[in-house]
Amino acid sequence: MQDNREKCRELAARIYELDGEVYRCVGSSLGRTFTGNKETTIKSLAGMMYTRPQGHLLRSELALINNMARTIPDVKDRHRLLDEYAQILKEISELPDSFGTVDIIDEERARLNTANLHQKFSKDDRLIVCIGRSHGSAGNDIGFELAKALKINYYDAEIFTQVLERLEAENDSVNDALQHIDKYSSKRSWNLKKMFQEFNRYHGLPTQDAIFFNQSDLICSMAKKEDFVIMGRCADMILKNNHIPHISIFIDAPFELRVQRIMAVNNMKFKEAVHFLKKMDKRHARYYNFYTSEQWGKAVNYDLCINSASYGLEETVELIERMIAQKPKHKH
Amino acid sequence: MQDNREKCRELAARIYELDGEVYRCVGSSLGRTFTGNKETTIKSLAGMMYTRPQGHLLRSELALINNMARTIPDVKDRHRLLDEYAQILKEISELPDSFGTVDIIDEERARLNTANLHQKFSKDDRLIVCIGRSHGSAGNDIGFELAKALKINYYDAEIFTQVLERLEAENDSVNDALQHIDKYSSKRSWNLKKMFQEFNRYHGLPTQDAIFFNQSDLICSMAKKEDFVIMGRCADMILKNNHIPHISIFIDAPFELRVQRIMAVNNMKFKEAVHFLKKMDKRHARYYNFYTSEQWGKAVNYDLCINSASYGLEETVELIERMIAQKPKHKH
Repeated sequence: MQDNREKCRELAARIYELDGEVYRCVGSSLGRTFTGNKETTIKSLAGMMYTRPQGHLLRSELALINNMARTIPDVKDRHRLLDEYAQILKEISELPDSFGTVDIIDEERARLNTANLHQKFSKDDRLIVCIGRSHGSAGNDIGFELAKALKINYYDAEIFTQVLERLEAENDSVNDALQHIDKYSSKRSWNLKKMFQEFNRYHGLPTQDAIFFNQSDLICSMAKKEDFVIMGRCADMILKNNHIPHISIFIDAPFELRVQRIMAVNNMKFKEAVHFLKKMDKRHARYYNFYTSEQWGKAVNYDLCINSASYGLEETVELIERMIAQKPKHKH
Repeated sequence: MQDNREKCRELAARIYELDGEVYRCVGSSLGRTFTGNKETTIKSLAGMMYTRPQGHLLRSELALINNMARTIPDVKDRHRLLDEYAQILKEISELPDSFGTVDIIDEERARLNTANLHQKFSKDDRLIVCIGRSHGSAGNDIGFELAKALKINYYDAEIFTQVLERLEAENDSVNDALQHIDKYSSKRSWNLKKMFQEFNRYHGLPTQDAIFFNQSDLICSMAKKEDFVIMGRCADMILKNNHIPHISIFIDAPFELRVQRIMAVNNMKFKEAVHFLKKMDKRHARYYNFYTSEQWGKAVNYDLCINSASYGLEETVELIERMIAQKPKHKH
């Protein structure tokens, strides 16, 4: 303890000296950060470091000195003082409970986050990008283009419906006449067949729920087998609850911009588009809330929210690619 | 027009053929996407393309064929059919009003977005990263570390207060006795002096407002002169309203995680931390709303929102660096 107190005092004295040196080197038109009495200043800096090394104030004082040090005209002086600054910062960061040492990480969430570079993937882990989006934000187009760029599969509601219909048909036929090649199984069977022998187990639930639970099963099964981009379907929450790594992104754009886009895409009049979007937003929110008990579109429910209007379609895709920082697959 | 109709019909026929080929190559356990009558299917596909080439359904049908094509075991067949798929996609995208062609971009916003790669910077444009954050999300630490990584300046409320105090002192001394070297100007003057000859012009406003407007001026002036990371201060809205390029990021984390972190950082008890964070959130929201008339922390008010709990401090910094995709400066 005593050692630490002395270390703080030593660092405080060095910070005070650094400030003076920076002041001298910048030239007379710039003030010092510490204008008070030397002993008092060092004492208060040391106290700050000792009791609250993680505090705002210490970081700000240091940043201010650093900002000034960058403006030193003489290259040699500048390097020397920036080096001393970096060294002081390093030593402060080694103090117990220094600023920057209390992390914010949600271990469970980070472990599941496939954009987390430090995470060690097992060879069984897949790249799964869950995209939630508001209607009209071009989220669907962005997801489709992203899947294309990454050369991975793309799934949305329509595709799920088709896949599930085939599975149901397949399953019915399996139930009806094991292995019998009827008009369904030749035309509509599907190679995920084995996973869904139990497809009917939710029968008895309301249709909406049966669909949701079937989709959940399908998403979890696929997530163990292939890389893909998946649009909506509360896939983020489903994968989170099943502890399957993924990255969750929400794409949104200001309401006015979405209205403009829907007017162009759906050939709608202004009022019609406003009404339509409000209805769609409500429906999305209700669906998400019903199945996840969480608020749709609320930033902290996702790893990342992107304002597509700030980037446009193409740039948003590139931005996500850069973030994921995984080279496109070369399966093709 | 007639040409376009014929083009749609030709593409529809090729999609139908592709589906059949994919089906044949994948093997007998997989169904076709199109199970109906050939003529009817082609007609309906052509109609979709002609009247609604931007529609969901067309994209989903294509994605489904593509997803299946990827599973073709024979490499040569797979390449051939994926090439044909890419070619069809390309030709569809060349149709008028094809999907993906109606962008979502807010030209004004995109023009100001420094993370937008396509933007042509003039040599006068600076890298300015505005970071809003909820208290306890480690946003301040992230901003500080980001500035360090990018080797650019870091500004927060405390620094602004100091800088403004100096400027005020400087300005007073200028007003009091032009060029007279008094106890202030030698110790506290600042090289941004010339920009702030007019510092007093807001006197007469309530202090809070005077501070805000002085900060706004300072932010805009600096934004023309240097690269920096700036925490809060509604800097994003100030720069937007002044048409100065920047990137705006909001950092947030789930409430429970922020509570945990504040308990550790500020050595607070659970109840105290909850109370404190609620108070801080309200204060942030009120300040932002008062000066911008916008909702603090709402995703569409920023270019990007990051859930720091998904990444932790270090990864969040790296994520932002990757996104900005600008090499760190080598001023030092």
